[in-house]
Amino acid sequence: MSRISRYLPILSWARTYNQATFGADMLAAVIVTIMLIPQSLAYALLAGLPPEVGLYASILPLVAYAIFGTSRVLAVGPVAVVSLMTAAAVGNLDLPDMQSYIAAAIALAFISGLILTAMGLLRLGFLANFLSHPVIAGFITASGILIAISQLKHIFGISAHGHSLPDLIGSLISHLPETNPITLVLGLFTLFFLFWTRKGLKPLLRKLGLSNTLADIATKAGPVAAVAATTLAAYGFDLQSKGVAVVGTVPTGLPPIGLPEFAPDLWSQLFLSALLISIIGFVESVSVAQTLAAKNRQRIDPDQELIGLGTSNIASAISGGYPVTGGFARSVVNFDAGAKTPAAGAFTAIGIALAALFLTPFLFFLPKATLAATIIVAVLSLVDLSILRHAWGYSRVDFAAVATTIALTLGLGVEAGVSAGVLLSIGLHLYKTSRPHVAEVGLVPNTQHFRNILRHKVKTVPHLVTLRIDESLYFANARFLEDYVYDRIVCDDPISDVVLMCSAVNEIDLSALESLEAINTRLSELDIRLHLTEVKGPVMDRLKRSHFLDDLTGDVFLAQYDAWVHLAGDRAKAA
Amino acid sequence: MSRISRYLPILSWARTYNQATFGADMLAAVIVTIMLIPQSLAYALLAGLPPEVGLYASILPLVAYAIFGTSRVLAVGPVAVVSLMTAAAVGNLDLPDMQSYIAAAIALAFISGLILTAMGLLRLGFLANFLSHPVIAGFITASGILIAISQLKHIFGISAHGHSLPDLIGSLISHLPETNPITLVLGLFTLFFLFWTRKGLKPLLRKLGLSNTLADIATKAGPVAAVAATTLAAYGFDLQSKGVAVVGTVPTGLPPIGLPEFAPDLWSQLFLSALLISIIGFVESVSVAQTLAAKNRQRIDPDQELIGLGTSNIASAISGGYPVTGGFARSVVNFDAGAKTPAAGAFTAIGIALAALFLTPFLFFLPKATLAATIIVAVLSLVDLSILRHAWGYSRVDFAAVATTIALTLGLGVEAGVSAGVLLSIGLHLYKTSRPHVAEVGLVPNTQHFRNILRHKVKTVPHLVTLRIDESLYFANARFLEDYVYDRIVCDDPISDVVLMCSAVNEIDLSALESLEAINTRLSELDIRLHLTEVKGPVMDRLKRSHFLDDLTGDVFLAQYDAWVHLAGDRAKAA
Repeated sequence: MSRISRYLPILSWARTYNQATFGADMLAAVIVTIMLIPQSLAYALLAGLPPEVGLYASILPLVAYAIFGTSRVLAVGPVAVVSLMTAAAVGNLDLPDMQSYIAAAIALAFISGLILTAMGLLRLGFLANFLSHPVIAGFITASGILIAISQLKHIFGISAHGHSLPDLIGSLISHLPETNPITLVLGLFTLFFLFWTRKGLKPLLRKLGLSNTLADIATKAGPVAAVAATTLAAYGFDLQSKGVAVVGTVPTGLPPIGLPEFAPDLWSQLFLSALLISIIGFVESVSVAQTLAAKNRQRIDPDQELIGLGTSNIASAISGGYPVTGGFARSVVNFDAGAKTPAAGAFTAIGIALAALFLTPFLFFLPKATLAATIIVAVLSLVDLSILRHAWGYSRVDFAAVATTIALTLGLGVEAGVSAGVLLSIGLHLYKTSRPHVAEVGLVPNTQHFRNILRHKVKTVPHLVTLRIDESLYFANARFLEDYVYDRIVCDDPISDVVLMCSAVNEIDLSALESLEAINTRLSELDIRLHLTEVKGPVMDRLKRSHFLDDLTGDVFLAQYDAWVHLAGDRAKAA
Repeated sequence: MSRISRYLPILSWARTYNQATFGADMLAAVIVTIMLIPQSLAYALLAGLPPEVGLYASILPLVAYAIFGTSRVLAVGPVAVVSLMTAAAVGNLDLPDMQSYIAAAIALAFISGLILTAMGLLRLGFLANFLSHPVIAGFITASGILIAISQLKHIFGISAHGHSLPDLIGSLISHLPETNPITLVLGLFTLFFLFWTRKGLKPLLRKLGLSNTLADIATKAGPVAAVAATTLAAYGFDLQSKGVAVVGTVPTGLPPIGLPEFAPDLWSQLFLSALLISIIGFVESVSVAQTLAAKNRQRIDPDQELIGLGTSNIASAISGGYPVTGGFARSVVNFDAGAKTPAAGAFTAIGIALAALFLTPFLFFLPKATLAATIIVAVLSLVDLSILRHAWGYSRVDFAAVATTIALTLGLGVEAGVSAGVLLSIGLHLYKTSRPHVAEVGLVPNTQHFRNILRHKVKTVPHLVTLRIDESLYFANARFLEDYVYDRIVCDDPISDVVLMCSAVNEIDLSALESLEAINTRLSELDIRLHLTEVKGPVMDRLKRSHFLDDLTGDVFLAQYDAWVHLAGDRAKAA
């Protein structure tokens, strides 16, 4: 792959583009467009933004991703979790009017785009690995719950605010007496209908003789049908005059193009939020992209994906949109519908642009309750509390990470939740490695293999203590090892040799080297020799650069068995 | 050791206290007292506090440590680095007058005492391990430089401010024209005298026939002689009227006893500084205590040391003192002078109390330049830039930690320096473990031992890929392993089996388990079996709690050699 086509993946697929791939991409684009129109309106509502902002975020970003992204089928655009995080980030600023709220959301997309692009160019994609699986799973689940609860206000036709569960529920309860009964009926009916199209419609259509693919597509069209039906109902029965909130006037036309205003104060206020949104968006998107790529035996380049998502967000910002990323449900639809290249995304962009040009007048009577219902049904599939049981069964540490992330996301909001989850994961990992597992080992009879004396029936000799250190030696556990060795040699046996088996020691840093030197000195004062075995190549190279090997009272053996043969002596053979 | 005597180490040594230990402790106390009087005045000056605060910090804290500390010979009191950190922490607050400056220093000791005691009771002593050796060495060296430069103003008799090297030097240069020539002569003379007593006096005294111990003590008395001589000179020649700054009136009497004022705002402003001072003070103190304890074959309990230092700081705060910890030079003198129990510290406290009662009138004419000179000579022994060369030779990562800590401590001040050092050490460690070393291994002929195919002459077979993973598998490197395996199997050989040799894998967390499951699934789609070997007991226990072992397409072998015998097949025997 040449240097240019690494940064412009479009060059590698555009060359072989032909009529067959065009047809496949076109079909997928039509299906995704139909799905994306209500979604983009709904997620804009979730982010606290006017509906057209959702449409704007679904045009240029898709074109940018088609040029710079590496996934063939990822569908970029507004997604639920990032919309929620946008609402939290911009909501925290306490802005005076909708105009500055929109400007802040645009700025958020712009900063996020710059962060993602910079990370891609600097090849910092590995940073996303510090979001552990339990933290992501917990965060997505808690976000799903927060989103669903936050949308209940539209179902009841009341106002409610808050970015955490206690705030939201308190606000909902205090406004409950203002419930609009017609909105509630409409909302519940839509909810019921959407759940039914998810669970009950497909089997029914199959029974009626439709092919699996057609039944699938019809099922996915549920939200479109709900939008059309409730809009017509609102228009026909003049529900607006009866207090049902509708979308209202949506400006017609393509988004205004222009760089966001330079506002360093606002940008620095939004920086941390933008960083969190960038990383969460990237992790979500790249895992979808990798899952789908694996099915087609394709590969994703995570660092180029950062550039793809970064340019998408910059494109969103310069065309009046808000932060975007690759969406799970939409990408799966794109994949199932047979999209072959990122051109499908560009065609979807054309579809949304046409909608922005010609469809907006028809959206006036679209009830907000309908959009809220589509969001609730979509996000409930994100909620998966089984991760709690799963993590508990596997490890208490992973469980702590999941539980903390869920509790803090619900209790304090998305930013506190995900930050706490990441810091806790790293903290717990460091804590574990600071108190490493050290096993005293002996020889498994009739082999050259050494195992823990507490778990296996092994041969040992009293004057020889062999400790297998199950961790790299570094500053956080260097002193622990010192204490461990000193404690172990306080015993009645006439110990003459201590062997440190280093098969699991992948690193010895300068702090640990000082500790090893201290152990060597202390043991030599007690007439005990210190030996190392199974030291790995890279570690040995490092030790050779210090004076440690010159001062070592014992030897370094390639294999633990060699040390045994040399040191266990006649007593071992007799044993 | 009973539960009570664990928390009250005094109970274990007071029982066997007798006339011999009393005599030894008394002698050591007299010597340490003589050394401590000028030191406590000088370090108070360094902390920006009136001299009596230094004396106050050298009375009750010593008694508290004698009761709660575990080191037999540690001499607690004001020390250079903690005094510098106190000056930085309190100086940052921009307080209006000396009274509130003193109150803030007292509050700092109080919070630091609470933090240390709480850490001791919660057994959090291991947290100090996260200060790596390079960070501590770099920090102490940079602090020594900062302290020495900060004292130059007293040698020149000018005023200068700043908590970082650029500020200090800029301030010194701009005030240089105001230099007082008499102060400068006095200061330089004292500096020269003190350096000479360090280097030249002892050989001279030995030549004159003094015993080694006496010569040592005389050498250590250099500062006392300088204080006496320059005070007399200042009195005799009325230097104060010629512009030489002297200590002035020091209140006579014992310190006022009382709890510090409850000031939640001030306390929360000082909390982070207090935390840093606590950890730095603890690390410095415990390493001195451990070094000296080792010489007498005694042990230090780090968690009880936290309680000892914590109560010392609380004692300092309730008696008008500022943060204290165990001092290196002073503890060595105490040890060399033959102190046998912590009672020596209590006797030293009595000596300082007597000084506060009867000696203070004589301190009026003590020139500040003399105190500054004693500080400069004392701290230059802390400066050891050889750590830079040492770390560079051993590892670039350790070098980066030292260099960053030194540069930021000098450039931005002590708090930024040590914080950046700790965060960088942890960050670099995480980065390294996120890109683990993976070695493809083969059989060393005529052994059961496997080694890196790139470093050793080993036997391999084309259909069997054995990868030794040199790191625990956890969230930060789980995806790295996935990518590594997928990249490795893209080759022309008809691979049928992939073996992951887990001898260095000390942990597999939930994120890594997901990755292993993904690898297993992906390989099975390509008709490649996945095997594990040399999985450690604790890791195997964990895996058994999941479904992974049920789904694994291959086997788990106790020893890598077993896997070789089973999987390499006839081709291996032919090879």
